[in-house]
Amino acid sequence: MARGLNRVYLIGTLTARPDMRYTPGGMAVLELNLAGNDLVQDETGTREIPWYHRVKLLGRQAEMWGDALEAGQPLFVEGRLEYRTWETEGQKRSAVEIRADFLDPLQGGARLETVEDARGQVRMRNALNQALLMGNLTRDVELRYTPQGTPVARMGLAVNERTRGQGGAEERTHFLEVQAWRDLAEWAAELRKGEPVLVIGRLVNDSWTSSTGERRYITRVEATRLERLTRGSGQAGGPRP
Amino acid sequence: MARGLNRVYLIGTLTARPDMRYTPGGMAVLELNLAGNDLVQDETGTREIPWYHRVKLLGRQAEMWGDALEAGQPLFVEGRLEYRTWETEGQKRSAVEIRADFLDPLQGGARLETVEDARGQVRMRNALNQALLMGNLTRDVELRYTPQGTPVARMGLAVNERTRGQGGAEERTHFLEVQAWRDLAEWAAELRKGEPVLVIGRLVNDSWTSSTGERRYITRVEATRLERLTRGSGQAGGPRP
Repeated sequence: MARGLNRVYLIGTLTARPDMRYTPGGMAVLELNLAGNDLVQDETGTREIPWYHRVKLLGRQAEMWGDALEAGQPLFVEGRLEYRTWETEGQKRSAVEIRADFLDPLQGGARLETVEDARGQVRMRNALNQALLMGNLTRDVELRYTPQGTPVARMGLAVNERTRGQGGAEERTHFLEVQAWRDLAEWAAELRKGEPVLVIGRLVNDSWTSSTGERRYITRVEATRLERLTRGSGQAGGPRP
Repeated sequence: MARGLNRVYLIGTLTARPDMRYTPGGMAVLELNLAGNDLVQDETGTREIPWYHRVKLLGRQAEMWGDALEAGQPLFVEGRLEYRTWETEGQKRSAVEIRADFLDPLQGGARLETVEDARGQVRMRNALNQALLMGNLTRDVELRYTPQGTPVARMGLAVNERTRGQGGAEERTHFLEVQAWRDLAEWAAELRKGEPVLVIGRLVNDSWTSSTGERRYITRVEATRLERLTRGSGQAGGPRP
């Protein structure tokens, strides 16, 4: 499998004072709700697209920032996407979360342009919302068309992560959902299961109601750029040292 | 000092087959010449700006890729800026280089748009050229105006790096040059020595002839975004763990 790349950069404002909680093992978990507007330019023109992302910060960093952050604070986040599975009432569930590695509050000042939403939450204009991913496709790309005839491609990406834990090197795989629109979607349609690709894009949220009536959320990557990686006789990357 | 962030992402084409050499200590060093066109949108409209960057890859990765790359190959590079000093004929010299941490050849194919320059070198259109930096200003920002009246701000940035070497944690500081234009330059003019800032921008090269008649080159970051970080009672980041 191609080496994994899994980086997320966000700049937005906190919609609320973050909640601190502790795992049963005593680890601090800080949940941040970050909001921003992306300026997106494509074939259809320039639009401002709002986003709301929940970001988790763990451990020492969470404790450091737990009491210092208020609603409206502009923040820079460097992080990654984390795939997580669990069981609830005998059913297997999975989710993709944004995990912050580092957090840096920005000085807002007069230059900070914001908009207020219907719930009174402050959203930063000209936010930053970027993901860079490298992995292998978990299935052939599915190309569909919206009722208006706009092509949209969906693909699954398996991103390898190698961390040094207490028991030596540990391997984890993050299963992520990627979509592409228009020209990029049509190009992507030829990509096949197993192919290694580079994805650059924005994080977007989607929600739907499950068959049991529950609201479900998914974090996807909306690709602005997709590149096929070469395999070059097994050389394509190799795992990160 | 605020924690350092030092990341560079490039996508471009190789202008030549890379040169491999070895340090006196036996470490492989691969020098890559990468070229691309950035699509830059600002107050003056949209322009395609060419760039040529030299990228160094060291050690095991250099040996892995040494024989596999040819001129014209599209590449993705994840790396950082490295500040280096040395002495030559009793004079102290310094340079900023682009150091690749990882290299991934892309499959070009029919979608790869390129232009050929006057020397017959192939340059990728719609390249990627992004730097994300966090550090402290080494001096007050200097604001000047071009003969046409365009504001340009120059600043020095000290970026901390903490690596785990054989003798434990090692600290290094990279001294980088950053510039900003127009509105961003005028805003930046109020930044003072010592302030922690976040810089997002493109890598650009500048060259001039020294007093001794030699051609000198410098790699600068042209900021597209600048943000003041808060210090928040000494909490601003702290070094990376």
